[in-house]
Amino acid sequence: MKQIDGAAVAQKVHQETRQRIEALAARGIQPGLAVVLVGDDPASRAYVRSKDKRAAELGFHSVKRELPATTSQEELLAVVRELNHDPAIHGILVQSPPPKQIDEAAIVRAIDPNKDVDGFHPVNVAKLALEDPTGFVPCTPLGCIRLLEEAGVSTAGANAVVVGRSMIVGKPMALLLMRRGKGGDATVTVAHSRSKNLAAITRQAEIVIAAVGRPHFLGAEHIGDGAVVIDVGINRIDDPTSPKGTRLVGDVDYDAVAERCAAITPVPGGVGPMTIAMLMANTVQACEQLTK
Amino acid sequence: MKQIDGAAVAQKVHQETRQRIEALAARGIQPGLAVVLVGDDPASRAYVRSKDKRAAELGFHSVKRELPATTSQEELLAVVRELNHDPAIHGILVQSPPPKQIDEAAIVRAIDPNKDVDGFHPVNVAKLALEDPTGFVPCTPLGCIRLLEEAGVSTAGANAVVVGRSMIVGKPMALLLMRRGKGGDATVTVAHSRSKNLAAITRQAEIVIAAVGRPHFLGAEHIGDGAVVIDVGINRIDDPTSPKGTRLVGDVDYDAVAERCAAITPVPGGVGPMTIAMLMANTVQACEQLTK
Repeated sequence: MKQIDGAAVAQKVHQETRQRIEALAARGIQPGLAVVLVGDDPASRAYVRSKDKRAAELGFHSVKRELPATTSQEELLAVVRELNHDPAIHGILVQSPPPKQIDEAAIVRAIDPNKDVDGFHPVNVAKLALEDPTGFVPCTPLGCIRLLEEAGVSTAGANAVVVGRSMIVGKPMALLLMRRGKGGDATVTVAHSRSKNLAAITRQAEIVIAAVGRPHFLGAEHIGDGAVVIDVGINRIDDPTSPKGTRLVGDVDYDAVAERCAAITPVPGGVGPMTIAMLMANTVQACEQLTK
Repeated sequence: MKQIDGAAVAQKVHQETRQRIEALAARGIQPGLAVVLVGDDPASRAYVRSKDKRAAELGFHSVKRELPATTSQEELLAVVRELNHDPAIHGILVQSPPPKQIDEAAIVRAIDPNKDVDGFHPVNVAKLALEDPTGFVPCTPLGCIRLLEEAGVSTAGANAVVVGRSMIVGKPMALLLMRRGKGGDATVTVAHSRSKNLAAITRQAEIVIAAVGRPHFLGAEHIGDGAVVIDVGINRIDDPTSPKGTRLVGDVDYDAVAERCAAITPVPGGVGPMTIAMLMANTVQACEQLTK
């Protein structure tokens, strides 16, 4: 069994991003990322901080906009419009989830699709389905495809099962795996909580992508011998033996599955570091496209 | 084995459309469909004629615009823009394929998404992926879902395999089958020409949708006992015994498969009549949405 080292692959992606930033610098251009946080959710605050920090380290012009939890829809829309028109900003991200008074879908639609580095704007959703390479692909599934590639897994003709059908991971993952060309051409099955005989379905898969958001949802009975397992889940569970009293686990029962599979991503240290790496890669792509 | 009678279901859909047209008439509104044909391809001409005729029969304001094969991109765009602004027109369709000098994707993007009754505009592609019911779904996959429903086939939790990954049928079909709610909630596999062990995959399916565009591509070895088979293919093959010297067949070898499956659509008379029925239904939906 090979553990797929997400942190190492993420470093490799960051190195590529640095080189692309240097190439832009030679043309007098610095890519800019704006991350907008509304409210004081501690997890969201931590995500925003790490994105801002990573962006600055890599050489981006990094802007962090922190708005109070009482921000209105109109106020947030005004910030998005200002960033849309700011020529120093090439990527815009509004940290999810926003407070209840905010219509998140309307905010996503307000972002300039050319700066939508999260890949959630309908224009980018359509580009993914239509296999248009100028679109932005959501960072987590894009990171999963890169992990498969770096692990030497060929997707063409392979039987891949995606467990979960969200618009953040499951559906874009399926669309990526079925598109024509590198990292695609798989036979793709999307299974979910309403699937009958889930174990029988996933056991036949050469590639399993777990994206249900439930701790240890997939166990030994779900994974066939020699499968490659990508675990997108990041779930916090109680653990009295840990100093914090909790720990992070994936959607896959790693210990139960590790022995039988050919390769697997750990949690933490698997898909997690890739999401931020692909966000940075998407932002540099946005800058390249906007300034070419 | 039950043969699914597409012509009968299409009649039922047309009857519903008539009732919706009457309800609009009571408000002084007549839905309008414009079908644009560029060039003189005989098959396209026949399709356009039958759409125009059916629309008129049902009580639509039906407009047929026939443009010469030499029409330029700009000339065609001008016609689309005129129809976009025509308040008597609620649905616009440009018959595919256009002549070579036309950039078809650009024409589709020029159609007002609110009048895009073919469901090919990126706005409608995204709405399908995002499960937004105000979007227009491509007519053929929408017709397949209705056939399953009328045949009493429950899709929830069922193992459905779509063979083919086009944006016209395969991908929208998969997105429909996996969405939440009626006609959806299936475990969906998209297989295609590059899939390994295709027969092993399709044989396990409770529902098989064949949309590859190759005559008799799926035979007895591809279909499991008791499966429901929807055959989207319409292929013309040589047949010396027919007066015309040719006949229409599906992507499925009907005679080889009929005995083992629970239900199957014939070709012709299966999916074919549904495509035009759903086009009419989409047009009345467009009118309802635009005039509400």
